[in-house]
Amino acid sequence: MELSVDKILLGDVRTAARLMRELDDGIPRAIELLKSLYAHTGRAYVLGFTGSPGVGKSTLVDQVISQLRSRNKTVGVIAVDPTSPFSGGALLGDRIRMQRHGTDDGVFIRSLATRGQFGGLTRSTAAIVKVMDALGKDVVILETVGVGQDEVDIAETAHTTVVMVAPAMGDDIQAIKAGILEIAHIFVVNKADRDGATRTAAELRLMVEMGRDSRPVGAWEPPILLTEANRNVGVNELMEAIEQHRRYLLKDDAAAWQRHERDRIHRELEDILKGKVMEKIQWAFESDTVSRDMVEQIIQKKIDPYTAAEKILDQLG
Amino acid sequence: MELSVDKILLGDVRTAARLMRELDDGIPRAIELLKSLYAHTGRAYVLGFTGSPGVGKSTLVDQVISQLRSRNKTVGVIAVDPTSPFSGGALLGDRIRMQRHGTDDGVFIRSLATRGQFGGLTRSTAAIVKVMDALGKDVVILETVGVGQDEVDIAETAHTTVVMVAPAMGDDIQAIKAGILEIAHIFVVNKADRDGATRTAAELRLMVEMGRDSRPVGAWEPPILLTEANRNVGVNELMEAIEQHRRYLLKDDAAAWQRHERDRIHRELEDILKGKVMEKIQWAFESDTVSRDMVEQIIQKKIDPYTAAEKILDQLG
Repeated sequence: MELSVDKILLGDVRTAARLMRELDDGIPRAIELLKSLYAHTGRAYVLGFTGSPGVGKSTLVDQVISQLRSRNKTVGVIAVDPTSPFSGGALLGDRIRMQRHGTDDGVFIRSLATRGQFGGLTRSTAAIVKVMDALGKDVVILETVGVGQDEVDIAETAHTTVVMVAPAMGDDIQAIKAGILEIAHIFVVNKADRDGATRTAAELRLMVEMGRDSRPVGAWEPPILLTEANRNVGVNELMEAIEQHRRYLLKDDAAAWQRHERDRIHRELEDILKGKVMEKIQWAFESDTVSRDMVEQIIQKKIDPYTAAEKILDQLG
Repeated sequence: MELSVDKILLGDVRTAARLMRELDDGIPRAIELLKSLYAHTGRAYVLGFTGSPGVGKSTLVDQVISQLRSRNKTVGVIAVDPTSPFSGGALLGDRIRMQRHGTDDGVFIRSLATRGQFGGLTRSTAAIVKVMDALGKDVVILETVGVGQDEVDIAETAHTTVVMVAPAMGDDIQAIKAGILEIAHIFVVNKADRDGATRTAAELRLMVEMGRDSRPVGAWEPPILLTEANRNVGVNELMEAIEQHRRYLLKDDAAAWQRHERDRIHRELEDILKGKVMEKIQWAFESDTVSRDMVEQIIQKKIDPYTAAEKILDQLG
């Protein structure tokens, strides 16, 4: 099957799917094509949804897709889950629910469960965002589980990040972590019909207010919204909040936008660079008998692993 | 303050705490000391507890500490949380609860919230396990949040890994992921008084039974236990299961134990090696003006980030 820039730019979904698979497998021609696509990217708006398992991310994303489609926006969805589910069973319900858009040409859904051959999870996600962008998707939605550094990194690549919590997931807002908090542009308390929703929202509000002093004048302050995704309650308000944040980024604070882009590209470049070096190291380490000898020496306590690493590094030059 | 191998081996807690701080800060003398300590490690039994936030890890670990202390075992605890809590508030309750052992000389508790200067989270955790081991702790408990590759990697360094779930955390056992499942030696359904506990246990049992065909004859099969950690229910049974697994590792399957050790050391060596290379790259990347020029060129779409990374790599040699 021929992979070409033109086919992707014309929105050919089969070519895009093939390209993504080949990127996963680390096939050189796919990476070459990705390079050529780069000049045609930068038009898609990237929307992040993050939160713990069970918070209702897929259900809310599903509703957001419907809203975007009713406004004639095309949508790409990347569901990132670094720890692959033990069987299709548990998560299948979610995927099927979202697949009600599966027959809609305007929606392209891709799950990213493994790190793949292409490199780290952040790197793979960034590459797939680019393909969807070049494919002409107006909005790319990143759905991440929201725990772990990988996913904080991924969420940071979004233009607008929605952090979701549900009441009674823990005893309080224990499940929300600092890294996630700092990247939130909008907070959503989903399952708002449950006990404790108002309290959770109040705690979040207090937290946002506490951070007010450290924010510059005129800076974006994350709103706190209540939703019941499964009954489509509060979704209009969420769309409105997303639109407000987008307008804020593009108009009110264009300098912040440029800073964000520069930081994002800087991180991406560094990430790609590290990935390339890691590959070389991995290869050298695994193909070499030195590493096996060293492991034996470490087991026998003849050398410690830190000194062993220094020795190997000296040998690799 | 003098840091010496002898002081650590004599069990001096203040020296150990200082060493851990200096390792976090990447101070060379601390790394040199860690090298010298290596020959004196390998005696501690490492016990992992992993599960989602709110599952009751700290409460159960607290009960396990009490049990170990009543058997005259000294204990080191490392609570790993890669996404630092937004304030001390949310998690303080847990930490305080565990601190009832804080005045007990036989218990040493250390939280690891950030990656630190020493390197990745896995690397930092491995280093602290070694210090606690050299300090003479009989058992080192690793408490991890159990989502994300980092924590799977950390859990893999334990001799016995306890995977905790609670009923009604999600709709089913959605929160349990493949990576975590594969490393479980014992399953604990905590909060067993809650609705759905029996169902969760039955689902886990089914899953374990489904895996039976792919396990070699005589291989360890993870038991599924029910606990109510806050009322100390089921903790004796857990201690018994841990002891059974320990006996299995040391006696019934000594070959598996050696394989486990060899794999662990191989991974650790590779991890240290990668950390060292990353440091060099990071330094070269950040001190160089090349990277800044490249970012500008990428923003202007004059070059794509993949080609840019290749160019930088060529220049670094």
